[in-house]
Amino acid sequence: MIIRAQKTELQKSIRTVMSAVPGKTTMDILNCILIDATVDQIKFTATDMELGIETLVKGEIDERGLICLDAKLFSDIMTKMPNSEVTIRTDDRLQTVITCEKTVVHIVGRDGTEFSPLPSIDRVDPVVMSQFALKEMIEQTIFSIAVNDANKLMTGALLETHENGIRMVCLDGHRIAIRRMKLDASAPDYRVVIPGKTLSDLQKIMSGEEEDRVSIYFTKNEVLFEMEGTIVVSRLIEGNYFRIDQMLSNDFDTKITVSRTELQGSVSRAMLFTSESEKRPLVLTIGDEGMNLKISSPALGSMSDDIAIAKEGKDLMIGFNPKFIQDVLNVVRSEEITVYFLNSKSPCFIRDEEQSYIYLILPVNFVV
Amino acid sequence: MIIRAQKTELQKSIRTVMSAVPGKTTMDILNCILIDATVDQIKFTATDMELGIETLVKGEIDERGLICLDAKLFSDIMTKMPNSEVTIRTDDRLQTVITCEKTVVHIVGRDGTEFSPLPSIDRVDPVVMSQFALKEMIEQTIFSIAVNDANKLMTGALLETHENGIRMVCLDGHRIAIRRMKLDASAPDYRVVIPGKTLSDLQKIMSGEEEDRVSIYFTKNEVLFEMEGTIVVSRLIEGNYFRIDQMLSNDFDTKITVSRTELQGSVSRAMLFTSESEKRPLVLTIGDEGMNLKISSPALGSMSDDIAIAKEGKDLMIGFNPKFIQDVLNVVRSEEITVYFLNSKSPCFIRDEEQSYIYLILPVNFVV
Repeated sequence: MIIRAQKTELQKSIRTVMSAVPGKTTMDILNCILIDATVDQIKFTATDMELGIETLVKGEIDERGLICLDAKLFSDIMTKMPNSEVTIRTDDRLQTVITCEKTVVHIVGRDGTEFSPLPSIDRVDPVVMSQFALKEMIEQTIFSIAVNDANKLMTGALLETHENGIRMVCLDGHRIAIRRMKLDASAPDYRVVIPGKTLSDLQKIMSGEEEDRVSIYFTKNEVLFEMEGTIVVSRLIEGNYFRIDQMLSNDFDTKITVSRTELQGSVSRAMLFTSESEKRPLVLTIGDEGMNLKISSPALGSMSDDIAIAKEGKDLMIGFNPKFIQDVLNVVRSEEITVYFLNSKSPCFIRDEEQSYIYLILPVNFVV
Repeated sequence: MIIRAQKTELQKSIRTVMSAVPGKTTMDILNCILIDATVDQIKFTATDMELGIETLVKGEIDERGLICLDAKLFSDIMTKMPNSEVTIRTDDRLQTVITCEKTVVHIVGRDGTEFSPLPSIDRVDPVVMSQFALKEMIEQTIFSIAVNDANKLMTGALLETHENGIRMVCLDGHRIAIRRMKLDASAPDYRVVIPGKTLSDLQKIMSGEEEDRVSIYFTKNEVLFEMEGTIVVSRLIEGNYFRIDQMLSNDFDTKITVSRTELQGSVSRAMLFTSESEKRPLVLTIGDEGMNLKISSPALGSMSDDIAIAKEGKDLMIGFNPKFIQDVLNVVRSEEITVYFLNSKSPCFIRDEEQSYIYLILPVNFVV
């Protein structure tokens, strides 16, 4: 195999596939990037067997062939190369020579035929949306998935389409995050659970531009995201996702509207008085004169803050894990947010008028 | 004690003293910052018993007193406070209330009288120089001190003054870094060894401006750096420093001049083929047609690079730890550097005409 490409193009393509290279694996070949130049285009592929990424590389093929190169070493070499055209040449013994200007690097590759190909997926009936929208949808929900996989379904996000609506749902047993959007065109009804890691890798790869599109294809067990020159294929998580709609409610006895920035400042100060080892509730006291936020830790001290709110309904005193509130405030865009409460034992809902986003957070008990 | 100051002033002062707070200590009180408002000025002090930093804080004293506050918690609280005036109030039971706008934080302090005061040092016969110059002098030598303290003297830097000259020397047994400068005024002759940590903390605190001055005072066992509103006091390392002048030589059989950027690029690529566990020499082959740099690792592969040089004297083949060359290239400012060699067993010298900097690097053996 002999291929030529600009260093910057090679770097870009390495970055794209890199997140599919597993951090730890007993299968050495998975630590490699497959360079496939057997047909007319140069393709880089990496996979951890759950998730695979394939991307086209702008360059020339002087001699067809394929090779696997250690992903980290290949990436490091590319970073250090002069900014110029790079030639990658391999022989039958997998000796690989990478040349750029007067620099010549010799490394040993692995047999490209050992590499597991990505599953081939029929590309029919896609859901098409902008990369910007999908990126936002992921960002605004993914923080609510469970970090440990005691319940596998909680480590993924539900993606659901119905007519021209799409929504993503994440939950971890203490909270739910829901983001709904409109699609430009109607799509078939889908209801799948996508692994959290797939979505966070996808987030890094997508351009975030409104005009760049992503087409999403589904099979029974897999999902394929197709962007300009790049595809991401992932297994789905099997099982019946939670019935979340029955957990939602529009009833409330207290409703407050508050400045996101002010609440964010206050909650971030409160976070100083809570830690992994000593979880302390943030107690909100909502009255006509405003909202008081108070947290106290026997070891560290206490904080009390008063912030202005617009209130409807009853007074209320309710406790939360401040981290859960902070996570929501970090991703909501609007400067004003509205929170709905029923009582001190029921979840609160942070949502906008159109319910384009809904965040449910369970309260925690506290001693006054 | 009741004091008032702007959040930004408090933050600045905390940052200044913070590096004297030890990472780990069995003496709890050292994890604190001492706030001293017993006289007319607010002073923050921190110390790890080797190094102490004291800085004045712009603010008002409403009631005199002193208190020790946990440095990390105090710093975190200040980071999260609104950008406004902060009041710190303590009572006889060391209860401390920090107020800013509508935020009220309660923490418990420690008795300020428990804090070890910094040693008092007579401020006579200083060496005065610009903070910019001292900062540069440290930056350009400190990387050559030894990381482990098998030989205590190697963990410090020699600071030497004679008439209106000052030089700093660092060495670790494999290399020596020397930086000389001219002082504006003559100073007494000093020859002391300052701990590396003191110098790297000082580097962070100094402004780096040519017009900001630092005065350096010495006693038998201590050094004091005085800047606008801040002093740094440190113990010195005892013992007779190495006689470095007899290790230096101006003889050479080969002299090359090379572009720093090109050599840097080449050496950084070579670094990919060496690691802590497998140290490999970078072999330079110097001839009339240029310089070849080659490194090879049985596990990873090899690299070969050709770069243009201006050469005087004999051809030469010599091996080095590439890290040592890289460290020098990272701190030298000039775009062209000159390297002097005697033979493949003798150290090379990277130095400028005026010998304002001299870097000695010992070669390593290699097998062709």
